[in-house]
Amino acid sequence: MKSATVFAPATVANVAVGFDILGFALESVGDVATVSTTNDQTISIKEIGNETGSAGPLDIPLDPAKNAATVGLIKLREDLRLNFGFEVVLRKGIGLGSGMGGSAASAVAAVVAANSLLDARLPKETLFKYALLGERAVTGAAHPDNVAPCLFGGMTLVLSVNPFRYVSLPVPKEIFTVVVHPQIRVDTRSARTILAPNVPLADHVRQSANLGGFIAGCFLNDVKLIEQSFDDCLIEPQRASLIPGFAQVKAAATEQGAIGVSISGSGPSVFAWAPSREVGQRVRDAMIEAFSGRGLSGMDSWISAVNPQGARII
Amino acid sequence: MKSATVFAPATVANVAVGFDILGFALESVGDVATVSTTNDQTISIKEIGNETGSAGPLDIPLDPAKNAATVGLIKLREDLRLNFGFEVVLRKGIGLGSGMGGSAASAVAAVVAANSLLDARLPKETLFKYALLGERAVTGAAHPDNVAPCLFGGMTLVLSVNPFRYVSLPVPKEIFTVVVHPQIRVDTRSARTILAPNVPLADHVRQSANLGGFIAGCFLNDVKLIEQSFDDCLIEPQRASLIPGFAQVKAAATEQGAIGVSISGSGPSVFAWAPSREVGQRVRDAMIEAFSGRGLSGMDSWISAVNPQGARII
Repeated sequence: MKSATVFAPATVANVAVGFDILGFALESVGDVATVSTTNDQTISIKEIGNETGSAGPLDIPLDPAKNAATVGLIKLREDLRLNFGFEVVLRKGIGLGSGMGGSAASAVAAVVAANSLLDARLPKETLFKYALLGERAVTGAAHPDNVAPCLFGGMTLVLSVNPFRYVSLPVPKEIFTVVVHPQIRVDTRSARTILAPNVPLADHVRQSANLGGFIAGCFLNDVKLIEQSFDDCLIEPQRASLIPGFAQVKAAATEQGAIGVSISGSGPSVFAWAPSREVGQRVRDAMIEAFSGRGLSGMDSWISAVNPQGARII
Repeated sequence: MKSATVFAPATVANVAVGFDILGFALESVGDVATVSTTNDQTISIKEIGNETGSAGPLDIPLDPAKNAATVGLIKLREDLRLNFGFEVVLRKGIGLGSGMGGSAASAVAAVVAANSLLDARLPKETLFKYALLGERAVTGAAHPDNVAPCLFGGMTLVLSVNPFRYVSLPVPKEIFTVVVHPQIRVDTRSARTILAPNVPLADHVRQSANLGGFIAGCFLNDVKLIEQSFDDCLIEPQRASLIPGFAQVKAAATEQGAIGVSISGSGPSVFAWAPSREVGQRVRDAMIEAFSGRGLSGMDSWISAVNPQGARII
């Protein structure tokens, strides 16, 4: 029996201007999967540990056909006609329904760990497909904007899912991300269902200008340009109502010097970009205070540089 | 009496993936305005010359309140409370309704020429506003994606019109643009009217991925990435029917090595990007042949590097 343990980071998807295509990885928060080979030729989950900070057992299915960590492994084993199975111990560091790419992280951690146990290892680009299967099984849709940065690290722009193509975008070194996770749960499927199926052409144009300015700002290392472009006129207005106090939290973060604030993935976590770690600390305090003013308490928060590495064997 | 003469280049707007925000300037084709100061404190058009290659007088109003070249001058004179007037001689090198930014070029040429006659000259960022007025008066809408590259040169992404903000995007040096102008006229207003007011969310996502990949490819000098991203899934499908033979022209250009083909502005001109001047020549021949196969003849065409300079005094 061989085994490997992989840390896969939490990720912030959409990043205000890149709905379903843009995402980046955080540093210290993530899921950890220990995958062991077994002789019984099945895929199973031995244990799911809760390290998310919220109390009680996690509402995650142990059925391997329904768990993000194992769905990809089932297909991987089939495709490669492996004559052994995998057993997974999952330690969840990312809260369920937090909007921080938890199912993507579980899927990526398990697939990367399993891959490291193979005689002929697959390239990351191939692993993407298997991780996406796990993500899709749980959330009902493939979210490449979480899986890609979780697997590859940094900030990624997914150009197409099939065939899979992505490009890494630079992020100015001075940028720190603040993430605050209020203890309410937003189901990814519901957050998607409320979105209007159509976008007014004028809003498409405005959002495109923001996306273009944001990407140009990243390549030019132009924090001011990033700040001016950091505005989601499409998705955020539709989802903000799912997060009590979102407008106040955003205003408080901006007042403390955040260069941009929006919803992390489908929420309820809210993230901000700050031009330094120090500003990030003030922004975090202000965001927590604003949420508290709306009666929310006990929330988790992080300040993180963009994680350049993605999932890694530990 | 003082006078100045300015060449303002033709421009390709939209550039497949950046509807209403992206555009670039061509080298040798454009409009020329000679602006002279007058003592009679009016704005007038003395003459409009036709150097477009099409026969006969141009259908352009001589009324200064309705001509793209003079509308901006009227406002400029008002705002600056000038105690003199301007007389304009316009030489049109860009065909009317060609989709090559003709009204933007007339407006920019006149405004830049007039500005050079002022004691206190305005910065280009301010001139943008006056040129846009001229453009708007003629086409019924402000097209910053023509005016910006015409004025500043290179490839520009307009981030917002009011306040005016733009960013210059690099273009790989080996890229040459082919433009073919079939002798049919597409009215800009009509080309806009046929567009659906809404965009399906999935198409917005796909077009955003293309825009992001295109811009990243420009910064990374990655021609392959530009090629993969060079696909307009929103506007081109709606306008292609205005251009007889568009599908055949696009296929012919692609077969000859074009890395991307789309409609220039609102058409009917079709442009292609080629990875060298030599490929550009083959692409142009193929495009002309394909148009000819649809019964069109006597079309103008150009092969041009991206013009880094924009409008210039000559």
